[in-house]
Parts: sequence; C-alpha cells; structure tokens
Amino acid sequence: MLGNVIVGQSGGPTAVINSSLAGVYKTAKDLGANKVYGMRHGIHGFLEEKIVDMDEKIKSDLDLELLKRTPSAFLGSCRFKLPEIEADRAMYEKIFALLEKYEISAFFYIGGNDSMDTIKKLADYAVEIDSPIRFIGVPKTIDNDLEVTDHTPGYGSAAKYIASVTKEIIRDGLVYDIKNVTIIEIMGRNAGWLTGAAALATCEDCEGVDGIYLPEVAFDIDKFIAKIGKLLETRDAIVVAVSEGIKTSDGKYVFEHGDHNEYVDAFGHKQLSGTAKYLADLVSEKFGCKSRAIELSTMQRCAGHLTSRVDITEAYQVGGSAVKAAFDGETGMMVTLKRESSDPYICTTGLYDVHKIANVEKKVPLEWITEDGTFVSKEMVNYIKPLIQAELTPIMITGQPRHIVVDMQ
Amino acid sequence: MLGNVIVGQSGGPTAVINSSLAGVYKTAKDLGANKVYGMRHGIHGFLEEKIVDMDEKIKSDLDLELLKRTPSAFLGSCRFKLPEIEADRAMYEKIFALLEKYEISAFFYIGGNDSMDTIKKLADYAVEIDSPIRFIGVPKTIDNDLEVTDHTPGYGSAAKYIASVTKEIIRDGLVYDIKNVTIIEIMGRNAGWLTGAAALATCEDCEGVDGIYLPEVAFDIDKFIAKIGKLLETRDAIVVAVSEGIKTSDGKYVFEHGDHNEYVDAFGHKQLSGTAKYLADLVSEKFGCKSRAIELSTMQRCAGHLTSRVDITEAYQVGGSAVKAAFDGETGMMVTLKRESSDPYICTTGLYDVHKIANVEKKVPLEWITEDGTFVSKEMVNYIKPLIQAELTPIMITGQPRHIVVDMQ
Repeated sequence: MLGNVIVGQSGGPTAVINSSLAGVYKTAKDLGANKVYGMRHGIHGFLEEKIVDMDEKIKSDLDLELLKRTPSAFLGSCRFKLPEIEADRAMYEKIFALLEKYEISAFFYIGGNDSMDTIKKLADYAVEIDSPIRFIGVPKTIDNDLEVTDHTPGYGSAAKYIASVTKEIIRDGLVYDIKNVTIIEIMGRNAGWLTGAAALATCEDCEGVDGIYLPEVAFDIDKFIAKIGKLLETRDAIVVAVSEGIKTSDGKYVFEHGDHNEYVDAFGHKQLSGTAKYLADLVSEKFGCKSRAIELSTMQRCAGHLTSRVDITEAYQVGGSAVKAAFDGETGMMVTLKRESSDPYICTTGLYDVHKIANVEKKVPLEWITEDGTFVSKEMVNYIKPLIQAELTPIMITGQPRHIVVDMQ
Repeated sequence: MLGNVIVGQSGGPTAVINSSLAGVYKTAKDLGANKVYGMRHGIHGFLEEKIVDMDEKIKSDLDLELLKRTPSAFLGSCRFKLPEIEADRAMYEKIFALLEKYEISAFFYIGGNDSMDTIKKLADYAVEIDSPIRFIGVPKTIDNDLEVTDHTPGYGSAAKYIASVTKEIIRDGLVYDIKNVTIIEIMGRNAGWLTGAAALATCEDCEGVDGIYLPEVAFDIDKFIAKIGKLLETRDAIVVAVSEGIKTSDGKYVFEHGDHNEYVDAFGHKQLSGTAKYLADLVSEKFGCKSRAIELSTMQRCAGHLTSRVDITEAYQVGGSAVKAAFDGETGMMVTLKRESSDPYICTTGLYDVHKIANVEKKVPLEWITEDGTFVSKEMVNYIKPLIQAELTPIMITGQPRHIVVDMQ
C-alpha cells in the first residue's frame, strides 16, 4: 500500500494512549508508509485541517520511547461525535476531500465507544462513495467498557494504579489507634471495571479493602451504614472503594441524596459529584468517628509514573496491528485483544467488525459481584491480575518522569 | 552502652518514616544493643505497655529492605502530647518505671514538632530524677516545618510526588481544545513547603503551573480571578497549585468564603476543607468554563511507589545518627540535616538542642515568594530540587509494591 496514513486520538486520556500512537507510527513506517500524519484534537481538529507530520515529532528511537512513556494524548483529543451521514453529508464530503488532499490511504482512530462510532460512519461513507481509504479503530479507554475485546489498553495501568495506591491508603489508615473510615472514589460512571481493581489490594501483605461497590448493582445506603457500624465494633481502620456512579434503587446517584440542600456548592449550584464525600460525611454523622473521602481523580488515568508493562506493550501492539490490518486491506474494523489463557497469561490481537462494537457499553458481569453487592469475586480478580503485571518505569530525569515535548502549534 | 533501646513513631505518616525506623534498628543492633523495642502507637501505646521486639519483625536483610520501602508508620502512630511535668508527675513516673522495667538505655522518637516536645520533656525529667536514659529525636514530617534542620525526611518524597504528578495533571489538561481550569490542592495548613514543590513541574518538557499560592501570604480572590481571566484569553488549559491553608487578608480560610451557605455538607455541617473545590466552582461561575479541583490528599504522604532516593537514604541516616548520638552519651537532642552545598548536593547530619526546636513552625521565607504572591522563586526551586533526586523503586511483586507485613497484635 502506498501513500500516507493519518492517526488521531479521541476521548479521555490514559497513561498508555501514546503507546498506541507509537505503535501506529512505527509499524506504518516499517511497512512503507510515506508520511504518518497526526490529527490535532482528533476528527474535530482534522476538520479544521490541524494536522502534523509525525516525522517532525519523532526524530529518534529515544523520542519514540519517550512518546510510549508519556501519559495523556500527545496529539490532543476531542469529544466530538460525527453526525449521521444523512444528517450532514457536507461534513463527510469535507473529511474525504481532506483525506484525498493529503493522499491518505488509511485512517486510524485511537479511542473508546464514540471513536469506534466515528470509524463506523467513515467506513460506511467510504463504501458508499467507493473510496479505497481504510478505517481501523484502535481501542483505548481506562473504563474497559468496550464490547468484544477481552479488555482495553489503558485499563491495565489504571487498574495497577488503583490496586497499588489503595494498598498505600490502607497502610496510611492503619497508623492511628482511633476509629477512622476512608471512602475511596474511583472512576466509572456506569461500569465498575476500575472500582473492581481495588480488590487487588488484598494480597499477602495487605488485608485489602472492606467493601467494593460497583454501579452495576443498586446501592443500599442503610445496609452500607449497618456494615460500617459492624466493622467499627471490632476494628479501628475501615477502607471501602466506591464507584463514582453508584445509584440507589430509585435510580438516584448516591451523591444526590442528603437531606440538606442536596449538596449545593458555594454558589448554589447542585453538585454532580462527591459520592465518597457524601458517604464519608454520612459515616461521621452516624458514628461520630473520623472519616475521609479520597478521590483518585485524574491521577488514575494519567499516572504515567506507574504503568503496567503488559498494558503499555499491548497498547503498542494494537496500534501496530491496526496498521497491519489496513495494509492487509481491512476496513471498518476494530483491533481486539484476545485472551488465549489467563494462567499463563497469553493474549493476541484480532479484528472485529466495528458495527458490532460502537456505542455498546460493556459492564461487569453480575456473577462477578458477590450476592450482597459489597465485593467482587475471585473470577474478577483473576481477570484483572494479568493486566497489571510488570512495570515500564518512566525515563527519570532530574528526579521526575520525562515526557516527550508537546507543542500544540 | 549496654542494655536495650526503644523507638516510636508519631504524628502523620510519610513515605519514608519506616526508613528512619530501619536506620535506628540497624545501627542499634550494629552498635551492640541487646534488644530494640518498638512502641505501638508511639508514647500513647507505650503508656499501655504496648511494645514489640523488633527482632521478631525484622528477621532478614530482605525484611529490613521491605521496611525501608514501606510507606506509613510500621509501628503505628499517635497524636498525643505529653502534659507538662508539673501537671502530671504520675505519668512521667509511669513512663520511667516502664523504661526501667525493660532496661531501656536510650529512647528514640521519630516525628515532627509534637514529637520533639515529647523528647524535650522526657529528657528534662530524666535530668530532674538523675536518670541515665538518653532521649534523641529523629525528625520526620512531609510538612518540612521543623526549625534548625535544613529539611525534614519525608519532605523530599512528598515533593517528588507533587512535582511528578503535577506534570502529569498538566499533560492531562492539555488534551482538549476547550477552556479548562484545574486547581490542585496540596497539604500544608500553615507552611507552603509542599505547595512550593509544584514549581518543579516547570522543566524542559513542561511549561509548569500558572500560579502557586502559599499560606505565608494573604490570598486575594479578586486578583486570582483576574489572573485566571487574563490567562484564559490566550490559552485553553490553566493549572494552578494552592495550599489547603490559604487565607484571605481578613484571616478567613478561602474555603470559608462563598455566599451560599458557606459550604455546608449534606448534613448541614460547615465544611472545613475544599479550597480547590471552592476556587474551581468560582472559576466556573465567573467564566462559564470547565473547571476541576484535584486534592492530592493522602497520596502525597503515602506514595511509597514514588519515593526520592535522597530522601529515603537521609531518613535512614538520621535514624542511625540518632542511635550513634545516644551511644556517644548525648540526650535531649534532635538529629538535624546540614546542607553543606546545594550544587553539588552534599548533606551531613548534626545534633541540636531539642529545646530550641520543639513547637516552632518553620515557614517558607517571604523572599522566596514572588512579590505578587503568585509563584515561588528560583531559590526555592534550587532548595527543593536536590531533595527529590533519584528513585528507590519499591520491590514489585505481582504487579504491586510489596510492603512489610504489619500485624498490630
């Protein structure tokens, strides 16, 4: 295949999304692509012709290695969903005119559900107008909520961060001889994949957390309080992990409860977050003990200083596999990760029709959640564990992780 | 010196307080101590005779290394200030009776200001009753607010964590092409040593944060908003670092401002934290842009997964130096760190009369804060930089940092 290729990043950043970008770049160059363009801020930037020549950014093997180990999206990202083809043909005509202008033969998009929707629509339009340009999706999301693929690059590193930091937070809580309750809030509005990773804190040197609450099952505030009360009878330090998206059976988010002002901020705006804060306040109110809410916040998705080598390697592989697939003539596909075995862990890449993936949110199977809804099963732990193995230490310069320089011109 | 020694940990945990414990243990054994006892939960536990024989916990060089690399206080901690001697002679009699029972010749206490107060009082009482027992303080606090010592063990690792994670958060904020403001909240109610470390995010590959606000100078909310407004005119992503303890010129904490309910929680309790949240809400209110508040929270003091080798080594050294000082006949002293030179960084240990240290809080010199109060000077950066250098990677087992097993019997 001759000509140029283009690659973009979309959706929320992860610690390893740039490893996929590195994989796309390297394999494309190795397979003979002339130019590898990068879209600034995904398809949104591309529509404004904001593109860069990746050769100007990656000038050496060291640059490539720095790119792999730099968290967050090097090219910038966007949250932009393409309209239906029928709704705005002009936009598609513009995109394809630009693709022709830059002699693009293959288009790669690294992202989650919305990004796969972009690949689907562009591939459909290409068929319609009989364009030879190929469109391949590269999976990425810390949320791990993409269908068909065993897991998504980005998830393993986020899970490793959560598992490791949770161990440290448990240690921190153990030091005082007074009753104290810690609520750790973890990302995942609708799927509990990340929160479930807190279960990995249970290991030979750590008793783990005392409860794990996923959004897949209704949260019962009274039962939660009863459980904390029971634990406090015999123990000083309690730590539980909750998903930011847990809801009570009436469909209300937990943070929407509260009998005083429904959590308004200092300006009278209703708050749309603060699950851990609400529960920590509730625990103090009920038991009069010390409590704290810890949000793992942005750190869980951008901790390039604590990545999983399995994850960062797979992120690289799916990038390269996407290029290989395009060069083999595939289009309208997403690269998937296929787990051949968990023990020993063996994982390969595959391809799957993006039409069957886009816009479908994969949740944690209910059979992986204990019957009382307060923990996850051994099966879930066995599923996650291989994905957090081994490290790819950042390149440390003057005491801090070194990143590839980004200039957003 | 014959007999046994005892060591305790007090105050807030740090990532390297156990390295000082390891230093005390190893040097005491090497210098011929019979038994090294550990107090559970500091002097508070000791009063209840809760002690352990460290030989039962440290059985190998591997155990010692695991102890060094385990964050938070292995022995447990307390926040307990001894009464004045005159106020409760019975308590002192009890402590010294216990010390005699266990044939203790030297007492080491690893902690901050309150812990040095404990050393001071016990040393004074020993003089009064003509006891030969020696009392030496080992400095420890992420807050870096102890007088006389150039810096405190624990600070360097917290500063390294803050500097590194701030770089990652800045990266994360850069990805979108929409206006967004991030406020990072950093520990330090009265002293800005930790918040100042955010200045280290400025390096060859990172433009750094757009403002640093320490509690040493009054915070002007209007000027802050004006500055953010000005930055938003030309840039998309703004990141500032604030100390949790910043106050306006009327002495009110920033989080106490707000014209709606003064930040009450869902139960009507006035909130005593949330500086970043308040400012992020204010920014959204004023400019209608996306904003987020990130609290580095407990992670900044317990991140054993990202310690400074300089810090962890110095923590070990001050532990060992304390033992050596006691064996040399010293008492009523705190070990200090004496910086001989910043470039090249050369630091030794010294001893200082604990009477001149206890209960005095060291703040960031005003000349290290820029005149407009929105950043710190190059001098402060040069002061911090050597303290975050190099890493002591945790011992990683099955993908997570391994810690020494703690059993709180």
